[in-house]
Amino acid sequence: MANQVLPLVKLIEQFARLPGIGRKSAQRLAFHVLDMPKEKAQEFAQAILDAKEKIRRCSCCQDLSDGELCPVCRDDSRDRTTICVVEAPQDVMAFERTKEYKGLYHVLHGLLSPMDGVGPEQLTIKELLARLGSGEVQEVIMATNPTVEGEATAMYLARLLKPMGVKVTRLAYGIPVGGNLEFADEVTLYRALEGRSEL
Amino acid sequence: MANQVLPLVKLIEQFARLPGIGRKSAQRLAFHVLDMPKEKAQEFAQAILDAKEKIRRCSCCQDLSDGELCPVCRDDSRDRTTICVVEAPQDVMAFERTKEYKGLYHVLHGLLSPMDGVGPEQLTIKELLARLGSGEVQEVIMATNPTVEGEATAMYLARLLKPMGVKVTRLAYGIPVGGNLEFADEVTLYRALEGRSEL
Repeated sequence: MANQVLPLVKLIEQFARLPGIGRKSAQRLAFHVLDMPKEKAQEFAQAILDAKEKIRRCSCCQDLSDGELCPVCRDDSRDRTTICVVEAPQDVMAFERTKEYKGLYHVLHGLLSPMDGVGPEQLTIKELLARLGSGEVQEVIMATNPTVEGEATAMYLARLLKPMGVKVTRLAYGIPVGGNLEFADEVTLYRALEGRSEL
Repeated sequence: MANQVLPLVKLIEQFARLPGIGRKSAQRLAFHVLDMPKEKAQEFAQAILDAKEKIRRCSCCQDLSDGELCPVCRDDSRDRTTICVVEAPQDVMAFERTKEYKGLYHVLHGLLSPMDGVGPEQLTIKELLARLGSGEVQEVIMATNPTVEGEATAMYLARLLKPMGVKVTRLAYGIPVGGNLEFADEVTLYRALEGRSEL
């Protein structure tokens, strides 16, 4: 289109690049931003910049963090004998919503997938092994998604960790097979935690 | 939740405030932003700021504009004898997508709605009347949505403009009654333009 207001077109394009946002939704969102008070729009823009600027990986669990250690690793009231191993930061958020898990986490940032060229060195497995060195950790819960890659990663890690004298468990199949952990409801996730079995 | 990474939570909240974006979609979008290269995220933030900073109303048609006059009013090739009156800037975009309409627009920024306290003085009717003063305009097309408020606004304007010696027409009912003009497809909109009838 020749007759376009460029800043508006650019904003629509930015929204349209987001996952799951089509052209008409992008237009609706852009007009919504135009209708916002100026300070609200500035807050929105600042939130995007801050998220990129301030968020990094926790030096311990590799979850997203706004400091050297993430809030969970900083929290003295957490049970340091248990580590829940997950694929992504979204999974940590899902477990935290159950309000039932009191241990620590370890975020792999991916799953083993030889087809996609993801081997053990692309995940944060080295960092996980380093955490087991102190002998404080007694149990590692494999909480990867119940998919082919999730199962394979859990089995691989279990074989790696068991010789180190640590108990390795797997989430119970309360979680629907083939589903996605991130979207499980709180109760299902809690049941899955409770019913975990040794690998 | 106590254990939260604040910049991430804030970004999720910002997305969740947008219309049609639920909590889980907001989370998905926030993580997408975190995964963006830094310069792409900065572009996104800048697009929001630019839209608020640079976009104002065209001094002629009241559509959104990045200058004193909008691209349509600036365009010498447009037919200045015809004005298409619409409710909102989104409607102008919909007509421009048909690539068939060559006249000018006038954006009312609302519809008459006594129930909601919107009277003629809340719309840009004064500005529309000023445009007719020069005698250049021969036809005004009422292209408000085919809803109760849209019809009422069209009738009100027709009664106001006819004594000024200007031809006042209404979009044909190619557009589904009760529907929303913004989401009409190009062909339907074009048919509606072609079949317009005098009020």
